Amino acid sequence: MSRAVFEREALIRFSHCDPAGIVFFPQYLVMFNGLVEDWFDQGLCLGYARVVRELGIGLPTVALQCEFSAPSHMGERVTLGLAVQRLGGKSITLQLSCRRADELRVKATQVLVTTDLASHQSIAVPALLRTAIEGFQTESAA
Amino acid sequence: MSRAVFEREALIRFSHCDPAGIVFFPQYLVMFNGLVEDWFDQGLCLGYARVVRELGIGLPTVALQCEFSAPSHMGERVTLGLAVQRLGGKSITLQLSCRRADELRVKATQVLVTTDLASHQSIAVPALLRTAIEGFQTESAA
Amino acid sequence: MSRAVFEREALIRFSHCDPAGIVFFPQYLVMFNGLVEDWFDQGLCLGYARVVRELGIGLPTVALQCEFSAPSHMGERVTLGLAVQRLGGKSITLQLSCRRADELRVKATQVLVTTDLASHQSIAVPALLRTAIEGFQTESAA
Amino acid sequence: MSRAVFEREALIRFSHCDPAGIVFFPQYLVMFNGLVEDWFDQGLCLGYARVVRELGIGLPTVALQCEFSAPSHMGERVTLGLAVQRLGGKSITLQLSCRRADELRVKATQVLVTTDLASHQSIAVPALLRTAIEGFQTESAA
Repeated sequence: MSRAVFEREALIRFSHCDPAGIVFFPQYLVMFNGLVEDWFDQGLCLGYARVVRELGIGLPTVALQCEFSAPSHMGERVTLGLAVQRLGGKSITLQLSCRRADELRVKATQVLVTTDLASHQSIAVPALLRTAIEGFQTESAA
Repeated sequence: MSRAVFEREALIRFSHCDPAGIVFFPQYLVMFNGLVEDWFDQGLCLGYARVVRELGIGLPTVALQCEFSAPSHMGERVTLGLAVQRLGGKSITLQLSCRRADELRVKATQVLVTTDLASHQSIAVPALLRTAIEGFQTESAA
Repeated sequence: MSRAVFEREALIRFSHCDPAGIVFFPQYLVMFNGLVEDWFDQGLCLGYARVVRELGIGLPTVALQCEFSAPSHMGERVTLGLAVQRLGGKSITLQLSCRRADELRVKATQVLVTTDLASHQSIAVPALLRTAIEGFQTESAA
Repeated sequence: MSRAVFEREALIRFSHCDPAGIVFFPQYLVMFNGLVEDWFDQGLCLGYARVVRELGIGLPTVALQCEFSAPSHMGERVTLGLAVQRLGGKSITLQLSCRRADELRVKATQVLVTTDLASHQSIAVPALLRTAIEGFQTESAA
């Protein structure tokens, strides 16, 4: 079975790097957060800011697993990738990656839950979001 | 007299914003740093990472003046602009801005000096960089 | 005339430093922001989080002027200092510094305005805050 | 068998928080990185900056597993904890936690490897570091 993948290029910047001259690992997670935003904007066509600000839906991370297999250096262009591993009742499990050409740099599994931003309580994945994710999966599989 | 301006679009991301829902001001300076990198890469065609890593030239900021006139919110697309105000013997003074349509959000003057990365001592702006900046000024004026 | 100064020690951490092995300058502004929080908590005894979260008062920066005179390296202990230069009707002008022993590393002037967090509109410096700042000035002068 | 735990208090700052008013999760990893530095300085008495800068030893993270069980808000004081789960030939596995009173906020397992900073190649955990970690384990168990 094919799996939809959303990809974006990113540049490793001076501000991502540490005194060892390579990406400081929390910066990968900031980059992946940006990829999730781009996926909401361009892959799901929902508008990330609209979901958060207008609909009052929060998307906090509840679990994260990462493997950092090779360092990335300032000035490199990398490819960030996102696939949906599981769409649960109240959670979305994403597979994330950072590659340069054939070399895998980072592989991550991130579980987001949907919450009511006012109360920080978890809520069922809203229909709007569920439908968009299902559409993304189907369309890419087609 | 016309002045060359290098511009890039940027998206205000979740990670730029603070609990007030607007850009946390140091993040503008991180964005401007990214703009300087893009200018080195695309405006001066020198390659920022190459200048820093291969040529061992540092570009620390020695002075900065900013005015933050209006807040930026998550999800907004802004235009970042850069112009060279002064090319000195050992320093480069940049005029930076962040606008959304007609609204000025941030205006900054930033003075960079060129240094030897090994010693952190200031050095004359290398010929390579001086020539590229003069070319950028002339070409845009043409 | 003496001037009250609020000081705190800080450690230059790995996460503050860039590929040149020195503090990435926006990180000084994040450190100064932490100093302002500590000053609200311990110098003004108001509780920064309470002012922002419970009273709904925002403290955005509208102007900033910095001089970076010497680099700071990972592992150094520095002293961050804050003094009130001017308490205006709707603004507070702070003098900030980062020193190591006798060496000045950074000097900054930062203008904060008080705003209503709900509307992002500027408001007069609330009496609570004005009284606390005046007390801080007097007490330290005594 | 008892296990040595190194703990430090931390304040949740404005700069750690996102537009939802809670800690942006990569900031926990920056805080944990600071805890590892404090452990090197105060728990192992080796000096983190000395290990990195003078001895040229890198400590990149190769694997990370986190559970974020409850949000942290600006102004809260939390306790960060570190224990050594495994001291391998070329790696150190840490158990990290962030708690507020009895409430667990974050639990993480982080695997660091020791590298030669010049080549970014992994090396055996240096004797200096191995001895210090074994001493930390024994002393705390006593």
